[in-house]
Amino acid sequence: MKKFERLAATIEDMIQRGNLPAGARLPSVRAISLQYGVSPSTVFKAYYLLEDRGLVTARERSGYYVNENIELLQPMPDPKQYKLYSRTVDVSQQIFSILHSIQNQQLAPLASAFPAQEFFPLPQLAREFYRANKPPSPYSATAGLSPGLPELRQQIQLRYQASGINVDLDEIVITNGAMEALNLCLQAVTTAGDTVVLESPTFYAALQAVERLQLKAIEIPTTPGLGIDLTSLEKVLKKQSIAACWLMTNFQNPTGTSMPEDRKRQLVQLLQRHRVPLLEDDVYGELYFGKHYPHPAKRHDRHGRVLHCGSFSKSLAPGYRIGWAAAGRYAETIQRSQIMSSLGPSVPAQLAVTRYLQKGSYERHLRKLRYTLESQKHQMLRAIAAHFPPQTRVTQPEGGYFLWLELPAHIDNTAFYVQALQAGISLTPGSMFSNHPNYQHCLRINYGQDIEASIAAIKQLGKILTSL
Amino acid sequence: MKKFERLAATIEDMIQRGNLPAGARLPSVRAISLQYGVSPSTVFKAYYLLEDRGLVTARERSGYYVNENIELLQPMPDPKQYKLYSRTVDVSQQIFSILHSIQNQQLAPLASAFPAQEFFPLPQLAREFYRANKPPSPYSATAGLSPGLPELRQQIQLRYQASGINVDLDEIVITNGAMEALNLCLQAVTTAGDTVVLESPTFYAALQAVERLQLKAIEIPTTPGLGIDLTSLEKVLKKQSIAACWLMTNFQNPTGTSMPEDRKRQLVQLLQRHRVPLLEDDVYGELYFGKHYPHPAKRHDRHGRVLHCGSFSKSLAPGYRIGWAAAGRYAETIQRSQIMSSLGPSVPAQLAVTRYLQKGSYERHLRKLRYTLESQKHQMLRAIAAHFPPQTRVTQPEGGYFLWLELPAHIDNTAFYVQALQAGISLTPGSMFSNHPNYQHCLRINYGQDIEASIAAIKQLGKILTSL
Repeated sequence: MKKFERLAATIEDMIQRGNLPAGARLPSVRAISLQYGVSPSTVFKAYYLLEDRGLVTARERSGYYVNENIELLQPMPDPKQYKLYSRTVDVSQQIFSILHSIQNQQLAPLASAFPAQEFFPLPQLAREFYRANKPPSPYSATAGLSPGLPELRQQIQLRYQASGINVDLDEIVITNGAMEALNLCLQAVTTAGDTVVLESPTFYAALQAVERLQLKAIEIPTTPGLGIDLTSLEKVLKKQSIAACWLMTNFQNPTGTSMPEDRKRQLVQLLQRHRVPLLEDDVYGELYFGKHYPHPAKRHDRHGRVLHCGSFSKSLAPGYRIGWAAAGRYAETIQRSQIMSSLGPSVPAQLAVTRYLQKGSYERHLRKLRYTLESQKHQMLRAIAAHFPPQTRVTQPEGGYFLWLELPAHIDNTAFYVQALQAGISLTPGSMFSNHPNYQHCLRINYGQDIEASIAAIKQLGKILTSL
Repeated sequence: MKKFERLAATIEDMIQRGNLPAGARLPSVRAISLQYGVSPSTVFKAYYLLEDRGLVTARERSGYYVNENIELLQPMPDPKQYKLYSRTVDVSQQIFSILHSIQNQQLAPLASAFPAQEFFPLPQLAREFYRANKPPSPYSATAGLSPGLPELRQQIQLRYQASGINVDLDEIVITNGAMEALNLCLQAVTTAGDTVVLESPTFYAALQAVERLQLKAIEIPTTPGLGIDLTSLEKVLKKQSIAACWLMTNFQNPTGTSMPEDRKRQLVQLLQRHRVPLLEDDVYGELYFGKHYPHPAKRHDRHGRVLHCGSFSKSLAPGYRIGWAAAGRYAETIQRSQIMSSLGPSVPAQLAVTRYLQKGSYERHLRKLRYTLESQKHQMLRAIAAHFPPQTRVTQPEGGYFLWLELPAHIDNTAFYVQALQAGISLTPGSMFSNHPNYQHCLRINYGQDIEASIAAIKQLGKILTSL
């Protein structure tokens, strides 16, 4: 990042945190130049950048002012309340047809499940891989099979330790992405016919996994900023036998928001009282915008009942399919199940990631990626505020790259999706994220793709919404 | 391969095929030199090499003679006959403890599931991977997810076409090794409680997959050189409902032998009459020692009921975890199941293999690998003939890298395995390859690892066997 970009980021941060409210005048170029020890031309460049991003406006002979429309958005959408009951899951057909429509669209930045390819150090990873394979090579196919390369498991263990989480090396199983980890974990703790607790809305792959294993699901509402409703959860746990609970505690997909740490502790204690294992899907945790990694529930696990699943797919190496489970007391079961079903993930992909981590470049990459994503979040929120109907509600994620929107009730969703698709814009409708018809008016939006194309799409969607 | 090595290979071939029987005198150096248009020193080098390998012996002032002990081995072991009945499978525990003992041994060439690492073009693959990721990069994480990179699926389709097999592009799903392919296929055509037909002996992963999915198994004897007993199979199919049949028709694991093509056709017709899908595990097919790829049963499939599974793990890129299923009418089910359970195999690993195939280097590599394996097979058979008890029976594989041995009945197997382990030699006992106690006197041996270490291990095993 260049000097003026760093300065712009600092000022943007002050605007977003309300230290520079809407309508406020930015300090003079001279004042900033003195305060931050940078040249006036650096300050000018920073102000131009902020203007370019629609954050401030220059008024002739008066200076720069914070724009008005930044805080116009409605607060976070409320999760719908509904009767809690165990239900057979039957959503795969619908989910597949949506995924199919997404795949078929060339212009699908908003619907994508990944940040833009350009944000990842793919050439550097490929170089590490190449170097690792130059003879004399330490490469060994069998050493990397289930439970995975010892060196990679060590690197992951070190990252846990750095956030104050003690994870045994034997607990860690490297998997073919977090998807394999979560599926192996769910399989390890359930048998067909069991009921599991999901949050609502929930990542659609959880619904598919539940359906695939012929389980039943109870969806418990999750409130942006608070996480799953613990009172409802306790009620359910007292009433019936629950085989497992599958949650995303950090930057949840689709809402993008997290559970506060004290509630994570309460969650673990509550589940422990009922001896219910927790599958914690934490694939977005590294993409935080705050000061540090928000500790997962796993940190409070004293009994090996939290199966914490992570991945490098969203933070370092999309497509490499390197994830893991820190699976507590279930680790051996999971490893055996992996040997029987896939033998383990690609060894060269593991090697490339391992060497990249060993070089110590990961933190620097993450800092850049977090900054980019946070800045794009703000741009996207502003675009939505500017172009979507005023009654639109939206979450304010503190990490990751998803926004969750609630459209005004009068919108005809079917017409909206059809017209959006005709305009070449594919979307991830709220209906994908529940086994109940609760989120027909909701929408998940990715702000981690090419930001210009994304904002152009938002403008176009705004026009369609206005016309409906 | 150098000139003298090619010449040695030609002569070795003549010896193995009986054109130069035991005791025969090799043609004079001058005769060979004229016949093949090579220098006398090339002929000398070839003869030295053959002598070095124990194939021929120089007699003073008389020339080179084919050694006597080459054909001393007993014929292939017969499969035990036993009652055919459907049985719950419960072998995983035992298999895992054996796999564990193998992993713990530094000196495990005979027990390995792979050929030696050095036989594969790993640096070249790594270079292709590196080049594919240099910017501007065509790399796309999402393009490579399930059903896999289109370019790789095309390359696989071309290989099918080259052997006269028409496979639709839509049929091909790239998987995390053949293991994922086979598991997805089995899952697609069965539900818990169903009965499947396996061959006996069978690859232990088939037993594990059956156990994992809570299926029952009927094992039908397979005769080296003939394959599964079709009469027994027909009897079973007439008697009860069979959900699927899982076989290896080429260079079967563990016996190393194949089913003749006309019997493959009969097999497909028989299963088709009963509408039973065939899972054809063909991961060793490319490692043939004959003139061409032995056509799989898939070639005779007219109804999309043969699910043919292949892999690059044994022939090109061990550890990359790139396999596939050409799954006929079940392809879409399998792809969906893959999206739900693993999202698909590593994209950079797919890219490396694709580019390697596109460059056209695969055939040359395979020719070299086949030659190496065939030559090691002969060396291993000779070592066994020289050091194992004379009543030992052994298969004569025409491809792959496994031998299947039947030890003399008087041997105490438990004592044998314990003493072998104490000597630092881990083995894959016959008991791993069946759900019935049929193969306690059998043994699978890998001849595709470092041949000197392997032969040293055979000598040591021979001593142990003699002492028992």
